[in-house]
This record gives sequence, structure tokens and C-alpha cells, in this order.
Amino acid sequence: MRIGAIEAGGTKFVCGIGNEHGEIEDRISFPTDRPEKNMSEVISYFEGKGVEAIGIGTFGPIDLNPESEMYGCVTSTPKPGWSGFPFLPTLQKAFNVPFGWDTDVNAAAYGEAVWGAAQGLDSCVYYTIGTGVGVGVYTEGKLVHGLVHPEGGHIMTRRHPHDHFEGNCPFHNDCLEGMAAGPAIEKRWGVKGHELPADHEAWEMEAFYLGQAIAGTILMLSPKKVILGGGVMHQEQLLPLIRAEVQRALNGYVVADELKGRIDEYIVTPGLGDNAGLSGALALGKAAAEKKLNLLNG
Amino acid sequence: MRIGAIEAGGTKFVCGIGNEHGEIEDRISFPTDRPEKNMSEVISYFEGKGVEAIGIGTFGPIDLNPESEMYGCVTSTPKPGWSGFPFLPTLQKAFNVPFGWDTDVNAAAYGEAVWGAAQGLDSCVYYTIGTGVGVGVYTEGKLVHGLVHPEGGHIMTRRHPHDHFEGNCPFHNDCLEGMAAGPAIEKRWGVKGHELPADHEAWEMEAFYLGQAIAGTILMLSPKKVILGGGVMHQEQLLPLIRAEVQRALNGYVVADELKGRIDEYIVTPGLGDNAGLSGALALGKAAAEKKLNLLNG
Repeated sequence: MRIGAIEAGGTKFVCGIGNEHGEIEDRISFPTDRPEKNMSEVISYFEGKGVEAIGIGTFGPIDLNPESEMYGCVTSTPKPGWSGFPFLPTLQKAFNVPFGWDTDVNAAAYGEAVWGAAQGLDSCVYYTIGTGVGVGVYTEGKLVHGLVHPEGGHIMTRRHPHDHFEGNCPFHNDCLEGMAAGPAIEKRWGVKGHELPADHEAWEMEAFYLGQAIAGTILMLSPKKVILGGGVMHQEQLLPLIRAEVQRALNGYVVADELKGRIDEYIVTPGLGDNAGLSGALALGKAAAEKKLNLLNG
Repeated sequence: MRIGAIEAGGTKFVCGIGNEHGEIEDRISFPTDRPEKNMSEVISYFEGKGVEAIGIGTFGPIDLNPESEMYGCVTSTPKPGWSGFPFLPTLQKAFNVPFGWDTDVNAAAYGEAVWGAAQGLDSCVYYTIGTGVGVGVYTEGKLVHGLVHPEGGHIMTRRHPHDHFEGNCPFHNDCLEGMAAGPAIEKRWGVKGHELPADHEAWEMEAFYLGQAIAGTILMLSPKKVILGGGVMHQEQLLPLIRAEVQRALNGYVVADELKGRIDEYIVTPGLGDNAGLSGALALGKAAAEKKLNLLNG
């Protein structure tokens, strides 16, 4: 089976071709630009490649409600030209194949459930911590859409007692993304995260925010796996600090081996590594090919 | 169809008999005591009543994993005699009918989706704010269990700047339950909530905590309806304060009519009123009778 995959991110588009086993055979990447330009690049790439389905995992906010007139469109975004753009309909006109359509983070969560760290499980939560913070939610064998779709990167956490950074989320100042995304780290410390030493206090502070958010997610949703991806997670010293913070925050209230002795297997980095996004889109394409759209579209 | 319903709460058991339309025809109530005593009361009540299925919505934590040896048991609880007690297996031995089995708050969420405020929707979140705070989660047509089951009453929120109460959760001190459940109100102000005037600052503080928690839930899960039940919600002045606090916390980030002009239809009290718990158990029984157990058990 030849399946197309599109990972539409805030800074770049990645398109690829893979198969039903999750193997990616070819890929291309180009900067995110105005939608007409990007769509023509996407169409050129897939033309004549004989894909049987295409999966799309994209930046949001997007319309995921199949009953809506705006289904398949980007909704309100500051990205020039993208507000209201009919992303999915444009590609459906170009290719007469089944499409999978979801947020980048839901796609990544689903890819991890099909081929990655949550393989065989019917639930996981996927965090990406990079230029923003995004959260994808897969639970009881379904990707969560609901009213719009999860936007868990913007939840409020308590402030670290030694942190004087005001936060840089334009909507909420010091929400999780405003305190813990890459740009917040850079603004707080005056250098990029990867330039800070591994024992810098920045990482304990970062773990404080992420650990609180993850503890809240565990209380609210009880996922079977928590997967942490994105550029900030390349800092390997972070993961143990986050696990400890989650345990501190829960304080033994939720009784499960996964939260005690097996926490190293419970809060993990993506099994698909930095391919989690593109592989997730591929998994959406596979589900579309197999007509598992009820799984994807609620 | 005659369906049995059991609402097992921290202070009392309610048993009832109803039909597939959600009408409750008979009920009985007795104090929560040691499990052997309560089980014999439950069995006496249903004996000879000819029920075709029984739904149970119970205090937790409980084992909801059908593959687990402990499926149907209460897990760790300070309630004398209940830790590890085989609640569901005991009743299965007594009655050879299909059973529905879930937490009290998941049952209430499901009942609201079948007959109440979320009727026809495939997602809702049900909060009960009473002697504790509990959260039931129904999303994409499924009750959420996951690793254990949601325990959203214990998430951390920011502290109100004028609140000097230390909190009274034995696990987390000042988590949501520790700050906003009935006993926290009583301990903070020295009188029970219903003795405080409607314009007392207690209610703005209460809305501050609940609104933050609900905003976090909307970001994380994007439910199609938020339903607030439990004794504390009998204070009618609370609901408008909570809606305003949710809007303040989200600050326009999630774009949906339900969060703007239609918030009065979005954050609501239970459509089933104080019957939400027993009706939820009845809805679980109905689903069991109709063999929709895949819906209930993931």
C-alpha cells in the first residue's frame, strides 16, 4: 500500500510517502508560506505517485466536525492567508483518494498508538514542547475532537516560586505554553535552551511546569501512556526531572504501578522519534484507506 | 423493560428500578456501611423484582479493566471493609443479568448524555461538587477509563490571592477538592455553605477555583457540554460567577459560540437534577441490557 502523509507545521511542511507498516520511503520539506503556494507544492509532490490515501496532521485551529460547512478548513489563525483556508477540500479536489484529517498533535498521538511508544494501547496523550506546546489526546480507541479539539498547551499551572518571568503567551501570559515553550526559555534566560548547561536551574523550572501539567492530565484523563516530544525534549536531563515532578504532584493519590516503579516506561519520549509527526499523518492516511474514519471522526 | 440502578455514594446507597426511557419507578436509600451489610440490603431490594439488567455507579477508586483479576472490585479506600471488596462479583453471583459498572461520576455523565443536559451529544464532562469533587468524562461516545479512571477533582489550581485557607485534601492540601468542596467552604468560613449569604465573597472565591478547573478541562478535552452537579451547586448565584470565570481564564483563545454568547447553554446544571446519579446508573443498566458494553468498557 502506498500512503501519502502531510505534516503541516508552523514553520515547515513535511510531505512523505510510506506504507501500512509505518515505513516512510520518501519525503520532502519546504517552509510554511501562504496557503496557495504550499498547496501547489503539496500537489506537485504527490502528483503521479499513485498514493491510495493521504493523511494530514496540521497546525490548528482547524474544523474537525464532518457536519460543519467549514470541515477541513483552518479556522482563525494569525498566519497570513490561512484563516478560513479550505486545506482539506483543496487537496480533495486534486486527489480522488480517502483522506485522514486531524491536528498535528492528534496525528502524532495516533501514530504512537499504531507504531510507537503506545503501540497496542487504546489511550495515550502526546505533548510536543517546542516553539509552542501542543497536546494530542487518544482515549478509549478514539482521537478526541469534542467541541473544537484539545488545546492543552494553554492550561494554567502554578508559577514556580523563584520564577519572575512574566510569560509570553499573547492570550494568557503565564499559561503552560507561555512559561515552558522554547521561546519562553529563551526569553527568560537570554539564550536558547540548547545553550544552557544540563545542570542549569532552567531545567528544574521547566520540569516544574511540565510535571504539573502532566499530573493534571493524568488526573483528568488517566491515559495509559504519556509521550513527550518536540525540540525542548531533546534535553535528555529533562525527562527524569519531569517524572519526579509528576510523582511529587500526584503524591500517591492515583494508585498504579505505572506511576510508581514503572514510571520510566509510562512517561516517555516518542517511539517514532522525530518522525512522530509525519508517521502520525501516515497513520491517519492508513486509517482512511482502511475506512476506519469512524475512529478518527468520532 | 425493568432495569435496576445502584448509586453507591460515600454517605448513602440509593437503589432504584426504572425503564429504558429513564423513568424511575421505585427507589430506596440506606446509609453506606460495611460492604457485607450494604450488599445484603441491595440483594434484598432487587430480589424478586424481575430486573433484566443492573447498572452500578459507585464511589471509587474501582477497577474498571475487564482483563484485570480485580475487575469489579473497589481498590484502595479508607472506607472500612471496602478496600479490595468484590462489589460487582458479589452482585453477579446473586443476579444472573447483565451489569453496567462504572464510577458514580462517569455514570452521571452518561445519564446526562442519554436523557439529560447532554442528550444527543457524544461528549460531556460532569462535575459533582459536594462533600468531595468528582469528574466524569464522556468523550467521542465513550466513557473514559484509561489507566484507572479520571480523578479530576484533585487537579491543582492557582490559589485565590485573598485566600489564606491552607486546604484540606489529605493528599494535596490545596488541590481543587481541598479548596472548593463543601467541607473546605465550611472550614474556611466557619459555617456551612448554605448558611452564607448569596453575596458573600465565598462564592466569588468558589467560582475562581471551579472556573479555573473547568477552563483547564475545556482546553484539555474540548467537551461539548459541561454539567455541574452536587450539593454546592444548589447555590444558584454560583453558576453565573463560574461562567464568567471560565471566560476570563480562556480569554477568547478557544473560538466557539458555546464559549461566548451561548455559554448559558454550555455550562449548566444537570438536566436530571438530583437524579443524575441514579439515572446514570440506570443508563449503565440500559446499556448493559442492550449489550452496548463495548461503549462502556472501552
